Amino acid sequence: MEYVKDFNWKPNLTVKELVQNYGNIGFQSVELKKASEVIVKMKKNSAKIFLTFTSNMVTSGLRGFFAQIIKLKLADIIVTTVGGLEEDIMKATGEKFKIGNFNTDDVELHEKGINRVGNLFINTESYMNFEDRITPILNKLYEKQKTWAVSEMLKEIGLMLDDESSILYQAAKNNVPIFCPAITDGAFGFHLFLFQQKHKDFIVDVVKDFGNILLCTSQDDKKGVIALGGSISKHHAILACLLNGGAEYAIYMTTAHKTSGSMSGATTNEAKSWGKVKDESDIATVNGDVTIMFPLAMIYAMEVLKEDGLLEDN
Amino acid sequence: MEYVKDFNWKPNLTVKELVQNYGNIGFQSVELKKASEVIVKMKKNSAKIFLTFTSNMVTSGLRGFFAQIIKLKLADIIVTTVGGLEEDIMKATGEKFKIGNFNTDDVELHEKGINRVGNLFINTESYMNFEDRITPILNKLYEKQKTWAVSEMLKEIGLMLDDESSILYQAAKNNVPIFCPAITDGAFGFHLFLFQQKHKDFIVDVVKDFGNILLCTSQDDKKGVIALGGSISKHHAILACLLNGGAEYAIYMTTAHKTSGSMSGATTNEAKSWGKVKDESDIATVNGDVTIMFPLAMIYAMEVLKEDGLLEDN
Amino acid sequence: MEYVKDFNWKPNLTVKELVQNYGNIGFQSVELKKASEVIVKMKKNSAKIFLTFTSNMVTSGLRGFFAQIIKLKLADIIVTTVGGLEEDIMKATGEKFKIGNFNTDDVELHEKGINRVGNLFINTESYMNFEDRITPILNKLYEKQKTWAVSEMLKEIGLMLDDESSILYQAAKNNVPIFCPAITDGAFGFHLFLFQQKHKDFIVDVVKDFGNILLCTSQDDKKGVIALGGSISKHHAILACLLNGGAEYAIYMTTAHKTSGSMSGATTNEAKSWGKVKDESDIATVNGDVTIMFPLAMIYAMEVLKEDGLLEDN
Amino acid sequence: MEYVKDFNWKPNLTVKELVQNYGNIGFQSVELKKASEVIVKMKKNSAKIFLTFTSNMVTSGLRGFFAQIIKLKLADIIVTTVGGLEEDIMKATGEKFKIGNFNTDDVELHEKGINRVGNLFINTESYMNFEDRITPILNKLYEKQKTWAVSEMLKEIGLMLDDESSILYQAAKNNVPIFCPAITDGAFGFHLFLFQQKHKDFIVDVVKDFGNILLCTSQDDKKGVIALGGSISKHHAILACLLNGGAEYAIYMTTAHKTSGSMSGATTNEAKSWGKVKDESDIATVNGDVTIMFPLAMIYAMEVLKEDGLLEDN
Repeated sequence: MEYVKDFNWKPNLTVKELVQNYGNIGFQSVELKKASEVIVKMKKNSAKIFLTFTSNMVTSGLRGFFAQIIKLKLADIIVTTVGGLEEDIMKATGEKFKIGNFNTDDVELHEKGINRVGNLFINTESYMNFEDRITPILNKLYEKQKTWAVSEMLKEIGLMLDDESSILYQAAKNNVPIFCPAITDGAFGFHLFLFQQKHKDFIVDVVKDFGNILLCTSQDDKKGVIALGGSISKHHAILACLLNGGAEYAIYMTTAHKTSGSMSGATTNEAKSWGKVKDESDIATVNGDVTIMFPLAMIYAMEVLKEDGLLEDN
Repeated sequence: MEYVKDFNWKPNLTVKELVQNYGNIGFQSVELKKASEVIVKMKKNSAKIFLTFTSNMVTSGLRGFFAQIIKLKLADIIVTTVGGLEEDIMKATGEKFKIGNFNTDDVELHEKGINRVGNLFINTESYMNFEDRITPILNKLYEKQKTWAVSEMLKEIGLMLDDESSILYQAAKNNVPIFCPAITDGAFGFHLFLFQQKHKDFIVDVVKDFGNILLCTSQDDKKGVIALGGSISKHHAILACLLNGGAEYAIYMTTAHKTSGSMSGATTNEAKSWGKVKDESDIATVNGDVTIMFPLAMIYAMEVLKEDGLLEDN
Repeated sequence: MEYVKDFNWKPNLTVKELVQNYGNIGFQSVELKKASEVIVKMKKNSAKIFLTFTSNMVTSGLRGFFAQIIKLKLADIIVTTVGGLEEDIMKATGEKFKIGNFNTDDVELHEKGINRVGNLFINTESYMNFEDRITPILNKLYEKQKTWAVSEMLKEIGLMLDDESSILYQAAKNNVPIFCPAITDGAFGFHLFLFQQKHKDFIVDVVKDFGNILLCTSQDDKKGVIALGGSISKHHAILACLLNGGAEYAIYMTTAHKTSGSMSGATTNEAKSWGKVKDESDIATVNGDVTIMFPLAMIYAMEVLKEDGLLEDN
Repeated sequence: MEYVKDFNWKPNLTVKELVQNYGNIGFQSVELKKASEVIVKMKKNSAKIFLTFTSNMVTSGLRGFFAQIIKLKLADIIVTTVGGLEEDIMKATGEKFKIGNFNTDDVELHEKGINRVGNLFINTESYMNFEDRITPILNKLYEKQKTWAVSEMLKEIGLMLDDESSILYQAAKNNVPIFCPAITDGAFGFHLFLFQQKHKDFIVDVVKDFGNILLCTSQDDKKGVIALGGSISKHHAILACLLNGGAEYAIYMTTAHKTSGSMSGATTNEAKSWGKVKDESDIATVNGDVTIMFPLAMIYAMEVLKEDGLLEDN
């Protein structure tokens, strides 16, 4: 049994030291420390790691961190929504997003051509530039083949980009598949539709991609899940785990609560009833904002893994 | 300017009377009353109404209410996730879900073959029965054609069911399309995959369905959105509105908060910056549990519309 | 074991019927129905009922409902914070609060002399009028005696008011004590201080009042707690129960979550570990906005009690 | 205008570096960075700093951090609830609290004499030991004088303790007053009551203490507020600021949301409408768990202040 310990600052405190202290503070800091340890175990025990996140995290500066995590071989499978992939491409092709304010007048923003995501701002112009960039990409894809499974298409797109901080680029380069079960739910979907209007035999095969996610791990693999936020990204990863016997490791980080019965708020405990994680799995659910909490937990894990010589770079 | 008024109970108070009172109580009760009025306006002004909800709401008893709403012509387009559609089929074919407890031991539940969704329980057996029922359905679909847009497939399935309380059944019968942008993210996706393994030319065309949702309203139509919970269901509906010039009416009901920058917590105000709703639209965002709040707001609207002779039945 | 049932609207649905249906819908609607039943049981089994609420609920139109509940003998002990008591006096002496907006510019409001509580507005003028009214009240109290226990002072103030919708008035008239453990934390505190500056022997005895709340129930009484929101109001009531052997019945309604380890988010289950409620008590914790949920649960209980002839009026 | 920047880990990252990065990530990380800067400004501009926190934070390991902050002259006035003061005394006299689990069976805990505060455990024995320790303390106080303002009593108690990690001890030693507007709302209140039963002339004067908090700053002082969590602690501090012309600096950290209209969820913007903070004040509201966020923001400020030679030690 661990005891509560009085926390004390000392100059030049590192993130790793702070997270170590969190384990003896209380409430969510304790859960965050637990989550950090689960990440360390995933890697030490060679689990295949699913990393899932929502679009708004790619809007944020976590995007480069996700790319770095892929580069460092700390994620084996990515599941996300299409909005984030669009924005990854935008950023990889020069668009810049701004730090704004949660309380700005939205009608004024609309008049200025600024789209708000919480306290972040995306120019409508960035979406227009995206349109210019996505059309030649779709043309190249179509030249290669007519029917595409989603993750195969995303890999191909990643190979066309040239940005070390891009999720699509790093995933493609490191053979990490990206699954996106709702590929049409965004501007990208609109452009796929326009393209198909001109090329009737152009098909995006989502059913085939279900096989791809199913087969990228197996009953024999140890499996770990890092689910940031909720949505289908989280659900799709744990469904794939369920069909392969359940994950050995899982951490959920979310602002949602279990009281709503929603997927976003579903806990790693609830996942046990389904067999999404194993009965005896190592799990942690941390409640709060991912932009603050995920870097803390992940950096702790990275520092420990580095010390233990388990952090590969490519 | 409205004033706060002291609320007082009188015997046999109706839901409509309570919601009327809510408008002068304060905090979320005021927003709920606003949302009720927006629903009334949507219908009075002949807006095409998008109704979106998440799977867990179909797990709950709201399922029959959604079916009734479709039957009463109070929703023109449905957007949801596949988990809810699976459960709608399960219920339509005799499966029963139980009222459980948020705090039940999940390992014990797993041993008993019970899957937990908040405080609701679904037997694993229900999923096995679903498997038996979905295979002949897929066979019939395949006999008819090889390539299916999602909403067209869902209509066909609805026509095969026979349950007045089924969302798929009522939607099919009333020509209300159901869109499900992540059709593979559930047990249904797994069965689609198994089916495709045997029938290589079986294709689910999600890109074509983007065209379907885009074309089921137009710039000229007035558009209204009732978004319950978050996820891609909410996003897909407002994206369709955005591409058709923005909605005139929108209400969001959610337990999520805007502080996270997530789609679930995004407000109807934020939607203005994107043009998802018009600058001068009638909007309301209500914070709280949909199972409590949505019946209140919707019943108020139904009672008012009935009094005004605007409630069609089929 | 109860089953999930499809909810269906029928015209002129009453609040009682809706709450009955809630029991078979799911998530928080199920917990709300449970809470309603616990309130019925409290009264049927002649428990002494603690009703606790926070200031903002008195800002809202729930104020008149609380007064009605006291009048109908459905609350035996009130615990609240001083802000609400100030506002009860303001309203009893003619001040009106307005329904505003959560997003109004606060600097503009400040310039107009409007103070915001969420989406409710209180004029600074109302506070100035309160000053004019509280001074003669304090004079009268001082003429009577120099040292006052808080609840005794509040009873005396209640007797000076003349408003059927006033909490202080109804409590005084029905011999329901009001406890306010932080009596100085508001404008009232400031006026007490100014008064004491002129009358050095004027003493508010909070320690004596601890005895009063302790002695208004006993080990032998059945005890029930209806805690709305968090704060010291909630804590003080359950502390009094703890010291008298624990409550038999308890419902908590709150927007806070247990993940924070705060009193506001503490559940009725957590209360068992402390003996604040008995191990075998009837309890329910409902998550959400009290302005929506409390009328629902309470009206259900009132209707049932009325049918059973258990609703006294004075 | 700041831009979103891709975050990247580098080995041995310090807390200060991480918080600097937070400013360009998004959502609550941006607000946390803002809060850090506001703390730096408070100190640089010699504001009198109110630090407020709730009991559960003293249950946690933040207790020692609060003591350190007082020691380093980074807080000039403390406002808190009595539960935390009890626990500070318990810890100063040898009691140890345990790291537990949010989901432990509460009836089992009750049988073992363990009281749960979220995921932290306090033995009932610790409360019994507290009883043994508080009686001689009250005797000493009574020997000295019969009537005590709360903050004066708390200073006296602090001088009787001998623990560098104690809030009461450091506050007493550094002449930092501790205000506790609901001094009876806890075990301490019960012991005050028992003591008063034996010593009828023993009086705790809360009204006098209102004067003390009012006079410990003035219109001429710059004032800053660091409010952690909600409750009367937060309200009391900002009320004192309001009566002295409003604070120049304020940060709120809370898990509550503004949608409820509660004090816990009230934002620093709402405070402007009241004049609790000045129209042109430097403010930030950060949403999330204080055990994670407060160390981050405070450590950043401490590191910056140390570099600038502004961190006094005693």
